[in-house]
Amino acid sequence: MTKFSILILGSASASPTLARNPSAQLININEQYYLVDCGEGTQNRLREHKIKFQRLNHIFISHLHGDHYLGLLGLLQTMSLLGRTLPLNLYGPKQLKEIVDMNLAYSHSTLKYLLIFHETQTNESVVLFENEHISVSTIILDHRVPCTGFLFKEKPKPRKINPAAIKRFEIPKYAMDNLRKGLDFCFTDTNKVIKNELLTLTPDECYSYAYCSDTKFNERIVSQIKDIHILYHEATFMDRDVKRAEATYHSTAKQAATIAKQANAKLLIIGHFSNRYKDLNLLLDEAKSIFANTQLALEDTVFEMP
Amino acid sequence: MTKFSILILGSASASPTLARNPSAQLININEQYYLVDCGEGTQNRLREHKIKFQRLNHIFISHLHGDHYLGLLGLLQTMSLLGRTLPLNLYGPKQLKEIVDMNLAYSHSTLKYLLIFHETQTNESVVLFENEHISVSTIILDHRVPCTGFLFKEKPKPRKINPAAIKRFEIPKYAMDNLRKGLDFCFTDTNKVIKNELLTLTPDECYSYAYCSDTKFNERIVSQIKDIHILYHEATFMDRDVKRAEATYHSTAKQAATIAKQANAKLLIIGHFSNRYKDLNLLLDEAKSIFANTQLALEDTVFEMP
Repeated sequence: MTKFSILILGSASASPTLARNPSAQLININEQYYLVDCGEGTQNRLREHKIKFQRLNHIFISHLHGDHYLGLLGLLQTMSLLGRTLPLNLYGPKQLKEIVDMNLAYSHSTLKYLLIFHETQTNESVVLFENEHISVSTIILDHRVPCTGFLFKEKPKPRKINPAAIKRFEIPKYAMDNLRKGLDFCFTDTNKVIKNELLTLTPDECYSYAYCSDTKFNERIVSQIKDIHILYHEATFMDRDVKRAEATYHSTAKQAATIAKQANAKLLIIGHFSNRYKDLNLLLDEAKSIFANTQLALEDTVFEMP
Repeated sequence: MTKFSILILGSASASPTLARNPSAQLININEQYYLVDCGEGTQNRLREHKIKFQRLNHIFISHLHGDHYLGLLGLLQTMSLLGRTLPLNLYGPKQLKEIVDMNLAYSHSTLKYLLIFHETQTNESVVLFENEHISVSTIILDHRVPCTGFLFKEKPKPRKINPAAIKRFEIPKYAMDNLRKGLDFCFTDTNKVIKNELLTLTPDECYSYAYCSDTKFNERIVSQIKDIHILYHEATFMDRDVKRAEATYHSTAKQAATIAKQANAKLLIIGHFSNRYKDLNLLLDEAKSIFANTQLALEDTVFEMP
């Protein structure tokens, strides 16, 4: 069973408070860590969860509003001070590199590891990273500054060997790799063919997670995240503040739920809450009125697939 | 009695940990606040102490190493979001302004208040700010990047009226201001002069505080802080790591104490401790072996004059 979990490190919008931290999430897919956004204080949030910084190889920054990246420089420098030598991949708007470079230059500092910068684009979705198990692509959002979400998607998994059938049909071991790929088996001496579906079982589901950090309500998002397993969608405001949401390029809880419904998501998690709301259940209830399977992306919550 | 206190918000060097925050101190002189350095997370440290951000009108940044300024941008933006309209004075190396401007530009943000930037110089000490009560000047330090400390100095205080003497000599009320300034009193009808020292008492002491953030041992500091009341001097390392201190332009606890002794300080507080030391009393003991009246600048400690 594949591990695929999302740890919420921050749920606040705009400014941190003592109760809520700015945006940051740690995605764990098969014990590979991916950090998504990095608001001020994220390095200490990671420490609280005893996450070894050196296990982070990919950091994704959605956009250049302070609550999404002001913890990045501190984290990069701490990794260097802790002796990191492995390259680190950083994904974000091109100006992020300028910001990092300027800060390092003025502090007369260099990182002890290679920082590989990958520029994100906001005109079309592109694959930022892939390995044999997953791909990570951008989601085009609609915010006041260039901003992308991130789509984590597992690749199709191999079919599972059915041990009982293998025994019954006396299939030799060398055939297993091809069976996992979905190929039929043919006995070389008799040319007898055994259909793959008689020998294998349906593979595990391919999970997917979409992170939509900051965006106004925009239905163009839906097609990019169709049938998503878990959708994180910002829900900065309540319905009564929908005009403010529109003006500031943010969403209401109902709008987030509408996107989840249209995308046929299995679970919606909402976050990036305005500090004006003390009782977040009001936002949750509004979202649930449209999309029942909604949860709050509160600090320290872990969401696991399935 | 004048209030003059120093609240320690961070004692760590280099990287924050869960126990120690990066450099930041809040100086309170007559209920006017001055923030000195602003490491990551400082806005939350201020919140913990229930400090109203809007009462901060002067922020001093000693140099551009991340542990001394990475909390600045978040704090500036939070002040704006909270509706600040009063101008804010920011003092620091000239590149600090570039960093602030670049971050604001790329986030398509403007502050809702005027940010008045004052560039610090590292070739000679200059007065950065003064009002009727105090002056704040730079202290020339010796670090790997341009770095200044800050000297907070009360101005000479008025002499105190001696009510019993005023009554005895029947001095009219209009003369009080001149008496406080140290002038003698002359009866206009008789031309009889009463010496000021018969009518007034010695003024309160003028307190001073020196903040020496990051510096290698350098005796040139001594003349800049002679007879200081409270000296904060970094003490990143223990004596056994003196070579490392030298190489990284930092000081040992003993070196900090030597500066305090030569400067004839009344109290030394040491901070900016390397994370390698778990027991800070070892640093304290080393400092005390040279300058007895030393204390640790631990988080949340308040040092008050006298």
